[in-house]
Amino acid sequence: MIFREQSRCSTTSARTGFLATRHGTIRTPVFMPVGTQATVKALTPSELMDAGAQIILGNTYHLYLRPGHRLIERLGGLHEFMGWPGPILTDSGGFQVFSLAQFRKIMEEGAEFRSHIDGSYHRLTPELAIEIQEALGADIMMCLDTCIPYPASREEARQATDLTTRWARRCLEARRRQDLLLFSIVQGGMYADLRRVHTEQLLTMPFDGYALGGLSVGEPKQLFFEMIEASRPVIPPEFPVYVMGVGTPEDLVECVAMGVDMFDCVMPTRNARNGMLFTSFGRIVIKNACFSEDERPIDPECDCYTCRHYSRAYLRHLFVARELLAYRLNTIHNIHYYLRLMEGMRRAIEQDRFVQFRRSFYEKRQKEIVTDV
Amino acid sequence: MIFREQSRCSTTSARTGFLATRHGTIRTPVFMPVGTQATVKALTPSELMDAGAQIILGNTYHLYLRPGHRLIERLGGLHEFMGWPGPILTDSGGFQVFSLAQFRKIMEEGAEFRSHIDGSYHRLTPELAIEIQEALGADIMMCLDTCIPYPASREEARQATDLTTRWARRCLEARRRQDLLLFSIVQGGMYADLRRVHTEQLLTMPFDGYALGGLSVGEPKQLFFEMIEASRPVIPPEFPVYVMGVGTPEDLVECVAMGVDMFDCVMPTRNARNGMLFTSFGRIVIKNACFSEDERPIDPECDCYTCRHYSRAYLRHLFVARELLAYRLNTIHNIHYYLRLMEGMRRAIEQDRFVQFRRSFYEKRQKEIVTDV
Repeated sequence: MIFREQSRCSTTSARTGFLATRHGTIRTPVFMPVGTQATVKALTPSELMDAGAQIILGNTYHLYLRPGHRLIERLGGLHEFMGWPGPILTDSGGFQVFSLAQFRKIMEEGAEFRSHIDGSYHRLTPELAIEIQEALGADIMMCLDTCIPYPASREEARQATDLTTRWARRCLEARRRQDLLLFSIVQGGMYADLRRVHTEQLLTMPFDGYALGGLSVGEPKQLFFEMIEASRPVIPPEFPVYVMGVGTPEDLVECVAMGVDMFDCVMPTRNARNGMLFTSFGRIVIKNACFSEDERPIDPECDCYTCRHYSRAYLRHLFVARELLAYRLNTIHNIHYYLRLMEGMRRAIEQDRFVQFRRSFYEKRQKEIVTDV
Repeated sequence: MIFREQSRCSTTSARTGFLATRHGTIRTPVFMPVGTQATVKALTPSELMDAGAQIILGNTYHLYLRPGHRLIERLGGLHEFMGWPGPILTDSGGFQVFSLAQFRKIMEEGAEFRSHIDGSYHRLTPELAIEIQEALGADIMMCLDTCIPYPASREEARQATDLTTRWARRCLEARRRQDLLLFSIVQGGMYADLRRVHTEQLLTMPFDGYALGGLSVGEPKQLFFEMIEASRPVIPPEFPVYVMGVGTPEDLVECVAMGVDMFDCVMPTRNARNGMLFTSFGRIVIKNACFSEDERPIDPECDCYTCRHYSRAYLRHLFVARELLAYRLNTIHNIHYYLRLMEGMRRAIEQDRFVQFRRSFYEKRQKEIVTDV
């Protein structure tokens, strides 16, 4: 088994564990910063490590199109290419292709799409998704899946889910490298019974872990949690469980409480570049005029490089002046915030005080003194 | 005296020296990276120090307009605001206002101009230029000068030069802080006699150093050198001499040979962001297809962070994908190249082998194997 559960909360389903990959063992629950184009935007690998990143995510769709997976393979693989020594998880490209809207067509064979870079035609099949990820040398590969829009009819959701199952089987068959882990992705739209059945189907196949996909696509929060509840308990404890593309700090806390082990999201990095910063007391929008002479760090409780060296006034100036340094310093802070949140949850679970941790997390945020100024 | 000459080349006018400021002593000849808006674009102060930066330049025009010199003063001055502990030289804003073309008007009193940010009207006088620079707390302040376009008639050049002299006198009178050094700026257009006379006029006033301004504005290279020759020898050895806004690596080598001590230029930083990288064997344009699978560092002779960690192939990918990390890694390299070049010249002068250094500098560049690929 590649995953070992370490400790478990006595009240919720929160747990800690170890996930072994060929580039090191990851402590879970874990958040994976997103490094779409062979870089976590604006940061170096050493800044990621300083922030406590254990594993990062790369995007198959983007790397396939540019600079190309064969080129990266010839240059020694994705780790060598981008200088990141830790584990990497790559998605399958399915979600990105799905996001191309009118520029893609889903068929039994795979997904046909046009490149967002040059408009060229491509066909992404389950076999190609595995070929790309093996060439990149990802520590954890994802099966190609079909994403289901929200809302979608039950029949639409069922058909897409069945196709995802057939593609998952083809991914397993296409896999050549056993040293790279392979996770499959539960779909089912917003239908709890479809999600449960799909989870059971995928569990009959020999995957190393299971992801819950097609969530956080615009559905009400209650539905989001219901879908996780429909499939998470079905997955035995010896497998890592990954909720894809999630989420806000609150989402992470709630999903951890439901027993989720892995997360990725562009929110900390993208919001940083838009000037939205996460703090222990809520979110702040750094361009607000109230910060123009504010000598305090973003978050007095934070010990990131940005908070140790710079005032809100300086960060506001950089952001308003559109200086490159703004994006970097903001990203360092937000990534640090997310990774510290995960670390705090792991420690709380180990000491069986996760419920208190969660309460304190929300109490602090009720004092959102700066958010709406 | 704030400047002390240390050693002198036995063949050329190249020299080394020490320039004392309240934030430390600078070894000359020195190159000052440009930090227009309270940041050297894309870099942190610690990256600048790692690259060997001794002093940086701030732009009065930009900081006056945004975030405002009074705000920076209230926050402890420019050093504290941007987290740079070393010396800072600020320009007077004259050149930037001059560059606004149809949006400015030069009068006896000062320069009226419209802000490039919001179109608001402002009047920059010699007194205000000093007030701003004292509020910023610059270690070295520059007098407000009038720049002379190229080409300009002799009469036009003479009038602008005379106005610069009157403004220099007003700057001296406006100065309140004696702990901040004040340099004046030699003008004279492209008329050698005007330059010589202007230098002599400014030398009758108690400035801490002398800059040669209005150069590298489109004139032929020969004229550029003639103008330096017209005024550099007039300035006694006890003053630091600064050629403003210069230049290419070749310019730096030639100006050092003529006895220039200080330089600033946006070339290494701006070109980095445009993908043009300086190396010991010439310039390379990183987006060129020939680098797509090139595993070598930018310059095998370079020991900067970028060259120690990344291949040309990766840097090309980042640049083509317009990733923020590209601008930063390229800037680190180019700044490092410029600062190493200055360090190499200082060492060569001290060991009286500057002439050999210069010869070797040009020989290496004749093998420009990569530039035009």
